Amino acid sequence: MEQRLTLVTLGVHDLPTARRFYVDGLGWEPTLDLDEVVFLQVAPGVLLALWPVTELQADVDPERPPFGPADAAPIALAHNVASEAEVDEILARAVSAGGTVVKPAQPAPAFKGYQGYIADPDGFRWEIAYNPGLTVGPDGRVEFSAS
Amino acid sequence: MEQRLTLVTLGVHDLPTARRFYVDGLGWEPTLDLDEVVFLQVAPGVLLALWPVTELQADVDPERPPFGPADAAPIALAHNVASEAEVDEILARAVSAGGTVVKPAQPAPAFKGYQGYIADPDGFRWEIAYNPGLTVGPDGRVEFSAS
Repeated sequence: MEQRLTLVTLGVHDLPTARRFYVDGLGWEPTLDLDEVVFLQVAPGVLLALWPVTELQADVDPERPPFGPADAAPIALAHNVASEAEVDEILARAVSAGGTVVKPAQPAPAFKGYQGYIADPDGFRWEIAYNPGLTVGPDGRVEFSAS
Repeated sequence: MEQRLTLVTLGVHDLPTARRFYVDGLGWEPTLDLDEVVFLQVAPGVLLALWPVTELQADVDPERPPFGPADAAPIALAHNVASEAEVDEILARAVSAGGTVVKPAQPAPAFKGYQGYIADPDGFRWEIAYNPGLTVGPDGRVEFSAS
């Protein structure tokens, strides 16, 4: 099988609020923007989907207990940038867009970089990071350099 | 800011178990495979990270209540394939690898395709889907065709 991610779907409580954060606030452009779902391209071949959590629940398995809150989800999404200044800028922009700072920007000794975390309006965690040891080649291949 | 995802980090309870599923079971090749974290490239410029949930929690915000279980996380990851037969094959492979079927493969009228869901050993939901209306161009651009 191919080693490939196609979609990351976030189950959101209020789609207009989520749209306001990602589309109006961050300025991300939808690939498809419908009343019931919004798709945003976030990498070659990869979409972020914003879908009401009740719909996601019904699609995955309506027989199970309802999903828990987004801020308890044991996951994080990361948006890496090219400098510490850019981390600061994007955290500020995310706050203007309706996000909440979970971890203020600070040095990240583990990867000799700089990071902060914000929560989107549902509570999903996004790390904004500058990691000088993680590079992406022109072919999209990610490499870690020894540091 | 760029419209870009760099990492999807899953907070896992037992890293050897998660590694067995993704690396040994599915056959995915790590970009970096350490005792404390495994990174797997899943799209151009995008890594899936498997990281013990306690470490993720400490990185995001050690002051908050602990994250909930993965199977309650209101998210889904999707792996799209090119045919219904491939959905069946990959669901079977995921089960051999240690996954659990959450939703058996079946027609998906919403997108005139075919889908099933599996849970990885932590309970994270992966949709395996054939969606004839979602295409990826040679430049990595995702498009939805009217159907």
